[in-house]
Amino acid sequence: MKNTFGSSLQVTIFGESHGPYIGAVLDGLAPGIEIDDELIKHELKLRRPSGDISTKRVEEDNYQIVSGVYKGKTTGTPLCILIPNTKQHSDDYEAAERIARPGHADYTAFCKYHGFEDYHGGGHFSGRITAALVAAGAIAMSALSEKGIYVGTHIKKLADIEDRDFNELEKDVKALSQKEFPALDSKAEEKMKEEILKVREDGDSVGGILETVITGVPAGVGEPFFDSVESIISHMLFSVPGVKGVEFGAGFEGVCKRGSEFNDPFRVEGEKVVTTSNNNGGINGGITNGMPILFRTAVKPTPSIYKEQDSIDINSNKNATLKVKGRHDPAIIHRAKVVVDAVTCLLIYDLISGRFGTDFFLGGKE
Amino acid sequence: MKNTFGSSLQVTIFGESHGPYIGAVLDGLAPGIEIDDELIKHELKLRRPSGDISTKRVEEDNYQIVSGVYKGKTTGTPLCILIPNTKQHSDDYEAAERIARPGHADYTAFCKYHGFEDYHGGGHFSGRITAALVAAGAIAMSALSEKGIYVGTHIKKLADIEDRDFNELEKDVKALSQKEFPALDSKAEEKMKEEILKVREDGDSVGGILETVITGVPAGVGEPFFDSVESIISHMLFSVPGVKGVEFGAGFEGVCKRGSEFNDPFRVEGEKVVTTSNNNGGINGGITNGMPILFRTAVKPTPSIYKEQDSIDINSNKNATLKVKGRHDPAIIHRAKVVVDAVTCLLIYDLISGRFGTDFFLGGKE
Amino acid sequence: MKNTFGSSLQVTIFGESHGPYIGAVLDGLAPGIEIDDELIKHELKLRRPSGDISTKRVEEDNYQIVSGVYKGKTTGTPLCILIPNTKQHSDDYEAAERIARPGHADYTAFCKYHGFEDYHGGGHFSGRITAALVAAGAIAMSALSEKGIYVGTHIKKLADIEDRDFNELEKDVKALSQKEFPALDSKAEEKMKEEILKVREDGDSVGGILETVITGVPAGVGEPFFDSVESIISHMLFSVPGVKGVEFGAGFEGVCKRGSEFNDPFRVEGEKVVTTSNNNGGINGGITNGMPILFRTAVKPTPSIYKEQDSIDINSNKNATLKVKGRHDPAIIHRAKVVVDAVTCLLIYDLISGRFGTDFFLGGKE
Amino acid sequence: MKNTFGSSLQVTIFGESHGPYIGAVLDGLAPGIEIDDELIKHELKLRRPSGDISTKRVEEDNYQIVSGVYKGKTTGTPLCILIPNTKQHSDDYEAAERIARPGHADYTAFCKYHGFEDYHGGGHFSGRITAALVAAGAIAMSALSEKGIYVGTHIKKLADIEDRDFNELEKDVKALSQKEFPALDSKAEEKMKEEILKVREDGDSVGGILETVITGVPAGVGEPFFDSVESIISHMLFSVPGVKGVEFGAGFEGVCKRGSEFNDPFRVEGEKVVTTSNNNGGINGGITNGMPILFRTAVKPTPSIYKEQDSIDINSNKNATLKVKGRHDPAIIHRAKVVVDAVTCLLIYDLISGRFGTDFFLGGKE
Repeated sequence: MKNTFGSSLQVTIFGESHGPYIGAVLDGLAPGIEIDDELIKHELKLRRPSGDISTKRVEEDNYQIVSGVYKGKTTGTPLCILIPNTKQHSDDYEAAERIARPGHADYTAFCKYHGFEDYHGGGHFSGRITAALVAAGAIAMSALSEKGIYVGTHIKKLADIEDRDFNELEKDVKALSQKEFPALDSKAEEKMKEEILKVREDGDSVGGILETVITGVPAGVGEPFFDSVESIISHMLFSVPGVKGVEFGAGFEGVCKRGSEFNDPFRVEGEKVVTTSNNNGGINGGITNGMPILFRTAVKPTPSIYKEQDSIDINSNKNATLKVKGRHDPAIIHRAKVVVDAVTCLLIYDLISGRFGTDFFLGGKE
Repeated sequence: MKNTFGSSLQVTIFGESHGPYIGAVLDGLAPGIEIDDELIKHELKLRRPSGDISTKRVEEDNYQIVSGVYKGKTTGTPLCILIPNTKQHSDDYEAAERIARPGHADYTAFCKYHGFEDYHGGGHFSGRITAALVAAGAIAMSALSEKGIYVGTHIKKLADIEDRDFNELEKDVKALSQKEFPALDSKAEEKMKEEILKVREDGDSVGGILETVITGVPAGVGEPFFDSVESIISHMLFSVPGVKGVEFGAGFEGVCKRGSEFNDPFRVEGEKVVTTSNNNGGINGGITNGMPILFRTAVKPTPSIYKEQDSIDINSNKNATLKVKGRHDPAIIHRAKVVVDAVTCLLIYDLISGRFGTDFFLGGKE
Repeated sequence: MKNTFGSSLQVTIFGESHGPYIGAVLDGLAPGIEIDDELIKHELKLRRPSGDISTKRVEEDNYQIVSGVYKGKTTGTPLCILIPNTKQHSDDYEAAERIARPGHADYTAFCKYHGFEDYHGGGHFSGRITAALVAAGAIAMSALSEKGIYVGTHIKKLADIEDRDFNELEKDVKALSQKEFPALDSKAEEKMKEEILKVREDGDSVGGILETVITGVPAGVGEPFFDSVESIISHMLFSVPGVKGVEFGAGFEGVCKRGSEFNDPFRVEGEKVVTTSNNNGGINGGITNGMPILFRTAVKPTPSIYKEQDSIDINSNKNATLKVKGRHDPAIIHRAKVVVDAVTCLLIYDLISGRFGTDFFLGGKE
Repeated sequence: MKNTFGSSLQVTIFGESHGPYIGAVLDGLAPGIEIDDELIKHELKLRRPSGDISTKRVEEDNYQIVSGVYKGKTTGTPLCILIPNTKQHSDDYEAAERIARPGHADYTAFCKYHGFEDYHGGGHFSGRITAALVAAGAIAMSALSEKGIYVGTHIKKLADIEDRDFNELEKDVKALSQKEFPALDSKAEEKMKEEILKVREDGDSVGGILETVITGVPAGVGEPFFDSVESIISHMLFSVPGVKGVEFGAGFEGVCKRGSEFNDPFRVEGEKVVTTSNNNGGINGGITNGMPILFRTAVKPTPSIYKEQDSIDINSNKNATLKVKGRHDPAIIHRAKVVVDAVTCLLIYDLISGRFGTDFFLGGKE
């Protein structure tokens, strides 16, 4: 479905980096969900590049909700969010050369769209597009929190620096929702920031691994065979620019263990069924088991670097050399974190709404 | 879409471990594709447990294509493959206890289906269901090979034993299509087999990592934003029982490098555009760049082990102890390999058919 | 989606007239729905040609449910129904000539499938395929009736003979579920049967108009803009072979009236909101208003007639003359009635399940 | 899929009558299609109420394409069209009474959205929303005409006044594209206009029947079983506000004939296969046969009339009396015509693009 995703809740996105607007349409939201503008602004702010560890070009995201909301609450009809781009095409000047940026979609978009694509700033493939997802995700986030469902993501690893594991889940998740830089351990945070600054000085970039936990999802959610919880989550995560890996629970490392170590034994604790370990990341057979859902996302280093790179000129199909100009982030992983939270909220909303009916998240009518 | 997946080519699966049949419906195949029964049988045979390193209960897969084929070629209308189960419900005797097998879907299926699920042998969540996907995938595999597209998968890692990397791609892919045990290096193969036998003796199981390459896919295929090639591939891989991680190109390890190391420089070689490294796994911005598509799949150890495990009785919701009986595989990764090949073929067919039209794979009419 | 339809409940069909089996997969059924074999058999029997007013070739529909049912109840996983064809390809003999039957899909299927289609008996385009829908529909019918939702269809018009309008709805709907020939007025029934016999003597065929009512659907169901109740119903009705028109409420004739006559005034009756007329057929703005849903379906005369017809030879692309052999129905409208009931039940189930959650139709666990 | 429709080409719509914008997102357009602003403006103008025979409140549709177009041509990424509403919520004043307008979606939307819906001017159910479809359809119209495919619609019947049948198709279709009032016969046109004026004087409204022809679609297009050409066309037509019936070819009247009259005999004319009649409306078995596609759409009288009507107060659930104020159209059928053309173009584009590949409509690159 290309630029539309979801079953019960569907999100459609549109826009290019240098066009007048980017935006998203959310279809299938329950009526009566309160729009929390502070939350939307907060998430958009975290996603924006913002000074030291990001590029200095900061664009305010003056989003506008142009449909689907009445008197501050969702109506149940499609909600469209528009975010204007402040930087637009300055002229129609066509360069003689067009050198593909390695690691970007310049060359592949050319192959797919035959040169008709709007390539300025990456066009539809710019990370800018994710701002619309972040705003949309914040609306789902509000609705989920009303039902006791929370999503938290930290940088598990950046270069060779590792953050601590999740510990007291609720406390960690709450702390992460407030932090500008999403690390749980303050020393790891310092080291990561230092690494980013060092990388910037080198005119280079760095990637890393995000770790996400979702708490409060009841057991029995998921639509296998093909729409297993892992399938749905990974589908949307892999659509986020820069994501190159997704693993659940104990992941790649864990699967090389033995079954006797990997299997998560069930126990009854009070009224509740739990597992005493969580190597399966809260999911068995594609269906939630009531434990926290846990996954990690590999985010590649920003492809835009200041070092000279080999490449080709798309127009002439000849070898060329690229020296990227402009301001670019040495790392995007802390911003990717905001997008991962957003798409996760959209997906969990979708799965729960499909299972329990579209009125499940219905807001209270005063 | 639960048990249906795909856009231009859609696959629907059905069946339970102990029911009369499992099966798949393939809708959207081009007319005139020759059915290669030898290939279907070969793939089904590889997926079957078969002796030493697998469980000894071997079930012949006497598949039958009951629609969509006429005179040995696809008609273009839905193709249904049926595979009978030899082991069926022997009686309607209901056990007093029903102990959830850790790592299996017993408990989560109970939560979702409220006890109405057919749980014998794992029901719809049994690996048995993948036999239908394997048969379906073999048909797509034939069609792809007619267009010079090939898929090859080996066990990159089992326990702590690593196979060598892909080397001469075409040769490796061809070799893998003939091998019973999918390792490239014969010493690694021996060690892996030994490890599996050792694990069996311990009444335990072991998992590992598969690595897949797809050659011959042209540049410009993929439907971002949401239907990036990574999204589509991971969606279906994560629906395969036991899969807990998917990574493309340099994956989790690679993303912790710097951009200058990770970016894949473009070069023109003769008429062809190539990249001099392949950290992005043949995909930029969710679209193929013409290089081989490369990904790895983490397959967890078989949850069925002979060691005693803690668990719960689903019926009474009380703690219990499980001692699995029957014959079970100490490893399924070499069989999961066949399923990964199959779903990969289905997906690549789907993406290419959507892009170039449903007649792209049209067979020659004599 | 070609051969799959539905959102919350999805039906996939497959098969050809002369292949070994036709069938359907139902995905998304709630667990615990009791399978009413008597109802399935009853509906299949009504759909079958059966003597005087139908062709004499009668094929028993020994359906088998091969998945998704355990101990007589749905499990919630995909339910596959198989129906064997008794008449299969007798040989692979290829006629020199292949004359397209006017009004049938012979020529259009050839254009779409390039001659690879299985054309015997109409192949995938045979009315035979609808037997699978009828069986599937009977399962949805059981689930709906548990919730007080009923569907009834009669022949409103055949040639120039008109049946009376619906009168006492509940009584009429109940009566229709028992009748072999679906007319409300016994005199109209006699005349219709006479007309069919007369048409048969002439070697000709005749079509007509079905009228369907659905009672018990609550107000507020439907997913406009694009998935209005009318859209969803008409989509599936127009996939039934022979259907050439669908109209709701007062339909084509009604719309030529004035607004003051057409509008249905609302009134409160006791606790219930009703409309004092039902020109809108129970639907406003694509959403049910709680009144009976009413629509009519135009079913063309069976294209197979015994008179000589002009046509073309598909193989040579030359003009030819066709004289149809074998036994054929002079009318199929009373059999189309059964299919219309079936697809209506599937759709109403889908709409309600999507709105109120997949457990809405959950059966009681003893 | 609620507010998204289509497979290869998908359209998503959003907006309410009194919100800041309505709009549509078109996803799946080929790159390089030239945007014909004159055509978009022309179609939007025809859809707008405009004087004598329509309401006098005329709102300029200053559409803006905010994504998916670069240098006047489609890029192949999602194209979003925004149309501002000039009339917006003036205040947040809440009336004590809310009387449901008979024939409108006021009551059913309340049932579905629990009172959270934006009901002003009909909200998301206003005919205003169709302006976005008209703009989107005009883009598909351009692309189709480049391939020799044309759509033409006239008012076949208004009250009891009938227009002549299509005659010389190409000439008629061309004439209709230029006319403000879509009738083929000038006398019928005069009578229809007179009738509309008379109806207006009476404070009433009137509906009628549109007839559409599509020329130039090759044989072999359509995706039965469920996505027959009739299914896809009717699905979208029935989502257009006010549509209550759709029939193809000879329709409801025709099906009561005998098979010998209804069947369309095939003939070879030169190189081309034709049928000597067109009772099937250019479609056999859900697939185009190369003849013009012909259908009729029943459009109910505008529900907004000036006569006093019985109804209920939604807030109190009590009987009430409605006297509609404001300016309203006595007929919308000539405006519905523009919407029917638009959605038809979107559908035909979708069907052809799915069949022949997304590059089928690729524009020429200078």
